[in-house]
Amino acid sequence: MKHELKEECGVFGIFGNKEAANLAYLGLHSLQHRGQESAGIVTSDGKRLYGKKAMGLVADVFDEESLKKLSGSSAIGHVRYSTSGSSSPNNIQPIAVTRAGSEMAVAHNGNLTNALMIRSKLEKEGAIFQSATDTEVVVHLMARSQEKDIVKKVIYALSLCKGAYSIVFLDSERLIAARDPYGFRPLVLGKTGSSYVVASETCSFGLINATYLREIEPGEVVSIDRNGLKSEKPFAKQHHATCVFEYIYFSRPDSKMNGRSIYMVRKELGKRLAVEHPADADIVIPVPDSGVPAAMGYAEQTGLPYEMGFLRSHYVGRTFIEPEQSIRNFGVKLKLSAVEQAIKGKRIVVVDDSIVRGTTSRKIVKMVRDAGAKEVHMRICSPPMKFSCYYGIDTPNTDELIANSLDIDEIKNYITADSLGYLSKEGIDIAVNSLPPEGGCGNGYCYACFTGNYKVEVEDMSLAPAQMNLFAEG
Amino acid sequence: MKHELKEECGVFGIFGNKEAANLAYLGLHSLQHRGQESAGIVTSDGKRLYGKKAMGLVADVFDEESLKKLSGSSAIGHVRYSTSGSSSPNNIQPIAVTRAGSEMAVAHNGNLTNALMIRSKLEKEGAIFQSATDTEVVVHLMARSQEKDIVKKVIYALSLCKGAYSIVFLDSERLIAARDPYGFRPLVLGKTGSSYVVASETCSFGLINATYLREIEPGEVVSIDRNGLKSEKPFAKQHHATCVFEYIYFSRPDSKMNGRSIYMVRKELGKRLAVEHPADADIVIPVPDSGVPAAMGYAEQTGLPYEMGFLRSHYVGRTFIEPEQSIRNFGVKLKLSAVEQAIKGKRIVVVDDSIVRGTTSRKIVKMVRDAGAKEVHMRICSPPMKFSCYYGIDTPNTDELIANSLDIDEIKNYITADSLGYLSKEGIDIAVNSLPPEGGCGNGYCYACFTGNYKVEVEDMSLAPAQMNLFAEG
Amino acid sequence: MKHELKEECGVFGIFGNKEAANLAYLGLHSLQHRGQESAGIVTSDGKRLYGKKAMGLVADVFDEESLKKLSGSSAIGHVRYSTSGSSSPNNIQPIAVTRAGSEMAVAHNGNLTNALMIRSKLEKEGAIFQSATDTEVVVHLMARSQEKDIVKKVIYALSLCKGAYSIVFLDSERLIAARDPYGFRPLVLGKTGSSYVVASETCSFGLINATYLREIEPGEVVSIDRNGLKSEKPFAKQHHATCVFEYIYFSRPDSKMNGRSIYMVRKELGKRLAVEHPADADIVIPVPDSGVPAAMGYAEQTGLPYEMGFLRSHYVGRTFIEPEQSIRNFGVKLKLSAVEQAIKGKRIVVVDDSIVRGTTSRKIVKMVRDAGAKEVHMRICSPPMKFSCYYGIDTPNTDELIANSLDIDEIKNYITADSLGYLSKEGIDIAVNSLPPEGGCGNGYCYACFTGNYKVEVEDMSLAPAQMNLFAEG
Amino acid sequence: MKHELKEECGVFGIFGNKEAANLAYLGLHSLQHRGQESAGIVTSDGKRLYGKKAMGLVADVFDEESLKKLSGSSAIGHVRYSTSGSSSPNNIQPIAVTRAGSEMAVAHNGNLTNALMIRSKLEKEGAIFQSATDTEVVVHLMARSQEKDIVKKVIYALSLCKGAYSIVFLDSERLIAARDPYGFRPLVLGKTGSSYVVASETCSFGLINATYLREIEPGEVVSIDRNGLKSEKPFAKQHHATCVFEYIYFSRPDSKMNGRSIYMVRKELGKRLAVEHPADADIVIPVPDSGVPAAMGYAEQTGLPYEMGFLRSHYVGRTFIEPEQSIRNFGVKLKLSAVEQAIKGKRIVVVDDSIVRGTTSRKIVKMVRDAGAKEVHMRICSPPMKFSCYYGIDTPNTDELIANSLDIDEIKNYITADSLGYLSKEGIDIAVNSLPPEGGCGNGYCYACFTGNYKVEVEDMSLAPAQMNLFAEG
Repeated sequence: MKHELKEECGVFGIFGNKEAANLAYLGLHSLQHRGQESAGIVTSDGKRLYGKKAMGLVADVFDEESLKKLSGSSAIGHVRYSTSGSSSPNNIQPIAVTRAGSEMAVAHNGNLTNALMIRSKLEKEGAIFQSATDTEVVVHLMARSQEKDIVKKVIYALSLCKGAYSIVFLDSERLIAARDPYGFRPLVLGKTGSSYVVASETCSFGLINATYLREIEPGEVVSIDRNGLKSEKPFAKQHHATCVFEYIYFSRPDSKMNGRSIYMVRKELGKRLAVEHPADADIVIPVPDSGVPAAMGYAEQTGLPYEMGFLRSHYVGRTFIEPEQSIRNFGVKLKLSAVEQAIKGKRIVVVDDSIVRGTTSRKIVKMVRDAGAKEVHMRICSPPMKFSCYYGIDTPNTDELIANSLDIDEIKNYITADSLGYLSKEGIDIAVNSLPPEGGCGNGYCYACFTGNYKVEVEDMSLAPAQMNLFAEG
Repeated sequence: MKHELKEECGVFGIFGNKEAANLAYLGLHSLQHRGQESAGIVTSDGKRLYGKKAMGLVADVFDEESLKKLSGSSAIGHVRYSTSGSSSPNNIQPIAVTRAGSEMAVAHNGNLTNALMIRSKLEKEGAIFQSATDTEVVVHLMARSQEKDIVKKVIYALSLCKGAYSIVFLDSERLIAARDPYGFRPLVLGKTGSSYVVASETCSFGLINATYLREIEPGEVVSIDRNGLKSEKPFAKQHHATCVFEYIYFSRPDSKMNGRSIYMVRKELGKRLAVEHPADADIVIPVPDSGVPAAMGYAEQTGLPYEMGFLRSHYVGRTFIEPEQSIRNFGVKLKLSAVEQAIKGKRIVVVDDSIVRGTTSRKIVKMVRDAGAKEVHMRICSPPMKFSCYYGIDTPNTDELIANSLDIDEIKNYITADSLGYLSKEGIDIAVNSLPPEGGCGNGYCYACFTGNYKVEVEDMSLAPAQMNLFAEG
Repeated sequence: MKHELKEECGVFGIFGNKEAANLAYLGLHSLQHRGQESAGIVTSDGKRLYGKKAMGLVADVFDEESLKKLSGSSAIGHVRYSTSGSSSPNNIQPIAVTRAGSEMAVAHNGNLTNALMIRSKLEKEGAIFQSATDTEVVVHLMARSQEKDIVKKVIYALSLCKGAYSIVFLDSERLIAARDPYGFRPLVLGKTGSSYVVASETCSFGLINATYLREIEPGEVVSIDRNGLKSEKPFAKQHHATCVFEYIYFSRPDSKMNGRSIYMVRKELGKRLAVEHPADADIVIPVPDSGVPAAMGYAEQTGLPYEMGFLRSHYVGRTFIEPEQSIRNFGVKLKLSAVEQAIKGKRIVVVDDSIVRGTTSRKIVKMVRDAGAKEVHMRICSPPMKFSCYYGIDTPNTDELIANSLDIDEIKNYITADSLGYLSKEGIDIAVNSLPPEGGCGNGYCYACFTGNYKVEVEDMSLAPAQMNLFAEG
Repeated sequence: MKHELKEECGVFGIFGNKEAANLAYLGLHSLQHRGQESAGIVTSDGKRLYGKKAMGLVADVFDEESLKKLSGSSAIGHVRYSTSGSSSPNNIQPIAVTRAGSEMAVAHNGNLTNALMIRSKLEKEGAIFQSATDTEVVVHLMARSQEKDIVKKVIYALSLCKGAYSIVFLDSERLIAARDPYGFRPLVLGKTGSSYVVASETCSFGLINATYLREIEPGEVVSIDRNGLKSEKPFAKQHHATCVFEYIYFSRPDSKMNGRSIYMVRKELGKRLAVEHPADADIVIPVPDSGVPAAMGYAEQTGLPYEMGFLRSHYVGRTFIEPEQSIRNFGVKLKLSAVEQAIKGKRIVVVDDSIVRGTTSRKIVKMVRDAGAKEVHMRICSPPMKFSCYYGIDTPNTDELIANSLDIDEIKNYITADSLGYLSKEGIDIAVNSLPPEGGCGNGYCYACFTGNYKVEVEDMSLAPAQMNLFAEG
């Protein structure tokens, strides 16, 4: 019972710090929630690149010895779930390439919606791809660019790519960071001592004593070398469309996005949810951990007591064998356990961030009832999710999303709740805007998973990214 | 920044279930918080025992293949921190022995306070020990018993042991569970289908669909075989002295001890703390996860808002290299990060379970101030901890406990808080007794770490258990 | 003290056998002497390719489970030392690529002497290489070919490559095997049941019950699919130049090359060596294992007794720490130990295959003297080695070869032998021709390492293949 | 197709050398042929013992780091096959124990024939064993000894043990080596610099620059400490009964036993075999490696040419999957391959050391015929093996030995040879005595496997040592 939505990736970069590898390691550790499948770091000592990447958590992939081998004063790093490209070692990022004696590495959060088309065209011209990631097309486009300057090569390549990218590049001399014109995925700029830092979220700044400077703006390409930072905006300007689910679920509560605290936004979402969908109940409980701030907001707004009705296990491993003596809600119980005495005999509001397939919510409702609840009122901090994401989030196919085929009343029945309320799109807007932005870069959000209104054309919706799979190596 | 107090162990046993190994695995998984250093399971198929144990978490030690090899319909299991005996593979439990063709295994939570004395005497008589654990003396005493019956052997051995034990034994035909006459450590009895289950905590029952029956009583020896369960109380009766810290910190919130919900007791402790030590403040925040229910209780009692001012990381690994560019409060930041916007400009009550050496509390106060708090009022759910535990908890030596050398005002200054309040021993009693017991077995608690009043004589307080170390194998 | 010359690779292929992976595994096992650094197999089930490769010996890389995953009825495999491209996981063969939905794999024994030039040209056109092997240029050339048919693509690519190749290709439908027009490296064709087999040496046929059919001829391209075997000779014909060192050292004694038993040729080399360089001595001993047949021939020719004066250890591992108390000839002693009673007080002829740097021979002479020999007469089965090999053997640079800077008398003094005799180039010819060929395909050999007469132009002798190294990954 | 007889163990000890661990490592490497299942070293720095042991070859178990941790200037080591006690990690030697603050380790080559009886008695008195090895009874007997001095404890314990032991002990201050009064297994004394060395064979002296001093005599107990070496012979004197199979097969050819070169003895065995069983044949070939010297002797005696008709593979790994397309003599072919051109059309004498079950010999004969031999004459360097060994060699049970149920003619038919000749017991005596001993300690040999004349009573022949197995740990 992992969350059914998976953030795809986190990226990190640092320039001009003699402890580049160590700080990249700590920075990635703070972005671990954005990708738990693999981790990688590439460093540069001004002459050569050094890399290490593997399947596993940041703390498992790296140890003191391997970090020591990552020489140099600049670094980029990546944590990853698989969206485009299967869970194969070939697909771990950063991707590093050597061409004509020069070395370069790249790490990408997002999804290029015309990658297959470009790839197919390049392959017809003789290109050979080593991974199944969309990211590799950027590298090939750069290799074919006639530009001499690497920043221009980057701009050339990205100008041919559509979709979502918050992406960092490292060569021997510089760190480049770019964000697509819609700003689908977050990317922020900070500084620790005299070293610039870029990262997917501000939460990676705390552990390395970095100060938040600003967001990398949608459409911006930033290049950092020994002469300092240069910025340009080479692409046609677009209405911003930052993923609103970063507020709802993906980002870490202690991060700030567009100048607003994720934690505070979530509490406001909970308050707004209470306004839109109050409940005649005794207590409010969250589905931890993501539902915690919203449940607190819901409780605050309604005056109902807030209780930790579920305990979340932090020791979930890979292999749990469901015993033959079939156990009710086994999967959910591995992750959550109900605190019976807090629930028994009461009417319960359960606050969660979203409903994807509905199967988990159904199990959660059952667990609450098994613990003795008299009534269960499910409250969701987002609108019904009806459409797949093509901009970097690993969602089920559209037809597996329960809200795509059932209406709210039917969903309520399916999950066996006594009542069900979803926060409206307008409610999100009100909640977000109730908090003043501190130095954010705009206010346009992507709601495609709720509305189906895709801001960037998707080349072929029937093609799952996994169809780009490479040859299967054991 | 692991918690400075470590529970020593969890034990589990099941009899008469064709999926004994799988259920023991799930049971241990639910007891993982009681010991994260090693895990082991021994099963019996009625003829032979089968075992597997290793350093690591339950989910890492076992996989489908290894569980399949653990044949049979009864099992005992163990998770462990090292209290007595160093972190050596030799010391992983269950301990299994073969004697004169019969096999037996044992798993123990607690600490025998006269183990060194017995061991020394047995070694003079020619005994050879294979581990540095106190538990092994029980096995040797059993081997020397003239009794034929294994239950009588167990009683003979335990009657010579002083101190704390919640202990399970498995031979080819039966499961035996015993708890010392003081009941220092918890031990409960349940049933899943027709199979009896014993476990350190009730929280291990949920995942395996077991129903709570009752506590194994202090001084009780329970023997379970194909003819059912037999109970006897062969030892001299004592005033109960169950570890009160199980309520404060060790047990999982969804467990019940002595008939009371751990979660509910913690909320009451928080309320009582608010009564004894109110604060002129704006918000209440817990040190997660252990401080959460108490902070909620404190907030409820005072009417102050409750906020999640800290985020706890769930990805803490083994090797974090502190960068040379010295980072403020590095150790604590790996585990906790402050949610700035929730804290900034406010007067904060921070609720924690205990203060051990004081160094962690000092860092936490600093983190809260760094996040912009105007005032920091530390509130602790237990009295000043002044004395080491000899009954199964891994505490620092008495002279390392800050409350042993400093008074409360000095501690307040050391941790740089604006105010500091400890819950009184009487406050604990009031909080616990405010909840009606549901089928508990008594109400006597051990407060030795606060009072120095050790109910069972400790053979030599200068002897740390680690001095029993075996020969060092690489 | 590994042999100072390293065979670079062995290749294997099988088509149309439901146990393709298992037979490839056994075939590679029999070619293990040709490469002990890494091993790999790629199979095809008619639709997709499946692969597994890793650093290590064949028996360590594969187990039952991994072989089971290699589905399909055709397979190619490879064992490797590093000549071109460093010892990096990226360079392990077979190399597999996916292009435009079709998959292909390739495994190569040899060395392309114009690989750097081609690679540099392709990189300028935007190609991105994933390995540092010369083999990958073949793949890129194929990708750029305008031909539709894969055999034609192979011919197009190989027609642009110079140097040595015995190479196998696998796609979903067919197995292709090709040998350069000079036939530098061996490649043979066999059949097991109705399945064709290609391999570097005939010794890989025994274990899989295959029958030897014939050599793949120099310049021949063989394509095997469900319609059978087709052969063509698309390249300009050249004088054959098969590596004569295959006879002297590389091939396994139970193999046949050009229709002659390696074992029998070696015995003849020893006999001829005795004719050219007799010795006034008591016994003849080989440097095992490679010197054994020649020493037997030498003994037979001279009538001197043959003795096993050295024992060779078969347990040589990776890490042997030379103790500070410096031990005479430590390196050699790890591999060889002298049988004192066979040597003591005698005049000894020591027979070895070659002298490379001279350091090993010097240690061997000292060991024989330490064991009590009165005189040591070194006899070498090949002419003085003066020139590096560019056709697939890992030799030291020319200036590290002792015979490049010292004459025979100086070498004799350096190695402290009482006499030294090298077999002449003519002696090799006489020895080889004294055995009738059974179905071989010609009689031209490459003697470039003795004569410096390179049959194929080497693009830049100053460029060690290692300079093609990729980015360093930990 | 491993050899069907397995040497059980090799032991090594060194005292007073600052590189004790490194030299023990090299010494064990040279004894690797005596046990390839596990390896271990324990060192002493005068205060504590340090140990490392694991399943695997010496070169795999130890690396530079692990050797560095083995502090101190004295060491004992062990390589092992399993005879007594199964292949369990518990049974790896040296066995180390801590008692009453003092530490001791022991390593043993041999087999105690009354171990089960002693063990059973000790267990009745309350002893608990941690391994299934017979060696552990020595440790328990020492623990029960009332003697103060450790040498006296050793003598007390060994005086109660029957059977075969060449055994070394290490405590913080001294190294003790003892050999049973019959001298079943070899044990020799040497010196490197000023440090005494004991080892199973002299072949372990070469790599560490040690000089052979003498054999440890049967019945001798040697104690080495900082005051030098003391020797005593505390046991009743017996007729020597050193295992004659050490000459025939077990010891390494470059070792010396009882003052005679193993290699030279084997050549004499081959000569004598030729005298007793000449053959009308064309060539003589050995079954490598053990048959090589005897085949050379046979050839020398008869004047027939000696050929290497078989090549032995040195890359035999663990998992070879026999393909379904059944391959003739698959098992043997993994290890041996025939050199066809040396064999074809000839009448062959095949020389091997022994016939155990007969199945391997049968396959070897078939391989020779498959390679085209006209006749196959099998010659064996020892008498028919009819009885199991109880003195430290892992033989099949008596009823699995082919010579126990079939006469020589029947065996000849079973293995499908044209003729079969076994060397007589008298022939062995003649061969051995034809070489003058240089400083050996006697001339009595054990022939129990040929004659059934067991010099030391075996407690219960029906009890395989494996019946002492401990509890099965995964």
